[in-house]
Amino acid sequence: MKEVGWIGTGVMGSSMAGHLQKAGYGLFVYNRTKSRAEGLLANGAVWCESPAQVAARARIVFSMVGHPSDVEEVYTGKGGVLKATDSKCKILVDMTTSRPTLASVLSQQAESKGIAFLDAPVSGGDIGARQATLAIMVGGRKDIFDEVLPFFLIMGKTISFMGGPGAGQHTKVCNQILVTGTMISMCEALIYAAKIGLDQQAVIDIVGKGAAGSWSINNLGPRVVKGDFNPGFYVEHFLKDMEIALSEASAMGLCLPGLALVNQLYLAVKTMGHGRSGTQALYLALKTLNGLA
Amino acid sequence: MKEVGWIGTGVMGSSMAGHLQKAGYGLFVYNRTKSRAEGLLANGAVWCESPAQVAARARIVFSMVGHPSDVEEVYTGKGGVLKATDSKCKILVDMTTSRPTLASVLSQQAESKGIAFLDAPVSGGDIGARQATLAIMVGGRKDIFDEVLPFFLIMGKTISFMGGPGAGQHTKVCNQILVTGTMISMCEALIYAAKIGLDQQAVIDIVGKGAAGSWSINNLGPRVVKGDFNPGFYVEHFLKDMEIALSEASAMGLCLPGLALVNQLYLAVKTMGHGRSGTQALYLALKTLNGLA
Repeated sequence: MKEVGWIGTGVMGSSMAGHLQKAGYGLFVYNRTKSRAEGLLANGAVWCESPAQVAARARIVFSMVGHPSDVEEVYTGKGGVLKATDSKCKILVDMTTSRPTLASVLSQQAESKGIAFLDAPVSGGDIGARQATLAIMVGGRKDIFDEVLPFFLIMGKTISFMGGPGAGQHTKVCNQILVTGTMISMCEALIYAAKIGLDQQAVIDIVGKGAAGSWSINNLGPRVVKGDFNPGFYVEHFLKDMEIALSEASAMGLCLPGLALVNQLYLAVKTMGHGRSGTQALYLALKTLNGLA
Repeated sequence: MKEVGWIGTGVMGSSMAGHLQKAGYGLFVYNRTKSRAEGLLANGAVWCESPAQVAARARIVFSMVGHPSDVEEVYTGKGGVLKATDSKCKILVDMTTSRPTLASVLSQQAESKGIAFLDAPVSGGDIGARQATLAIMVGGRKDIFDEVLPFFLIMGKTISFMGGPGAGQHTKVCNQILVTGTMISMCEALIYAAKIGLDQQAVIDIVGKGAAGSWSINNLGPRVVKGDFNPGFYVEHFLKDMEIALSEASAMGLCLPGLALVNQLYLAVKTMGHGRSGTQALYLALKTLNGLA
């Protein structure tokens, strides 16, 4: 039977692993909180007590966890995949959005044990994970990418090999930098519209299709108009991603003033108690800043 | 014969008036520099020596000039349309991207002379003007909008009535605020990609279609990659638009930190000698700022 390992069964991971399961792959599964793996287990996935146990049983192991610190724990912590002594694992694929520099370090550590490592963060959020329409941006060895590609194609729609170790994570950094700009300008345009008394949705309808258009204004703009700040993508996760971007940029001596400003404003959003709201909650911080809350 | 007046035959105005001409309308034309009206004149347009002369001959007069100061000159300066004593003009339509407050003032002055006024700025640039695919956002009286709509439909594709006097200009402000964010994040993402050694076009290809996507990254990003900083839309015109946005926001007591930052950076772009480059030249300022020029 075809089998793979899967570590991390949160909102994203459960959907992604579920697609592999539906495609006929047996799963060896680990998650910090076992209850979140129940859906996969009910469909035949085999529970493992640690990441190392997953690595002991599966040739290819995917991980999709939360923060870079979780990635470190899962790879090099007690019971981590790279600590397995009886490892059957030959390929590790981290799909978490994590630090590019951590990806490079883990790649070296894995290679020293004869295991290949790919960094393969995704974009497309919970909907993309559910509908298997994710974009997957991959760094590492090209021959390993080619071998894992069939799995990526089960989970996503647009798959790109971006270069050596860390290149997938660096591409995701570019992705998140782009989002900072579309979010701040969406919120500023909508607050301007509200303040002057324009119909916000009418503004979105006329400007969203042209040179001012973005995914953010067309998809999150209408949610702001309706006062819907429920999460598609959590503010606190976006903060993590911006902090990765800023520290990587800083390490390169790169000054990115737009990113820095938007990061500061999102810190205010979190302080206001909206860490678990959707990223469109930036609008609420701008309202407060302008005495409109 | 069906006739309209047209003031301002620059890159945008010539194309837009040309569509009316092709649709069978006779044109009474004025431009500060007569030579730029030659194409229209060769096709039968009638030259007028001043905006007032245009207003003396045509029931509906359109204007498409450069800056708010040009709009003031054309409307209330010596020989301005509102100075015509023998005016046949009943409807004035300013399609220049101009100050919302100026639009309100001109609307009042026109109404006091029994002339209706619409503010109807456009987006879509020179290409949109040439292909008649402009978005046109209109403020003023609804009954007048309805009367002018057939003309708008000859020049553009998406036409929206946004509200009373100034509402068209305010909508255009929202449009330009949106562009500030997509431009800064596009340039920061691409400079990050360059600095870390990613293939910039490959980054655009994978991130541009998802939640990070925008018109800017997909249309201007590839120009940056090729080192093409030729104007689709001039830096100095964008600066004008941002200054309108900032002063209108300031007048409302509205703090828009993203807009303010991007405006400052574009001032640097102009200082570097790129006022007549395309807006994607923001990338060059970021390069300089990062010692990469």
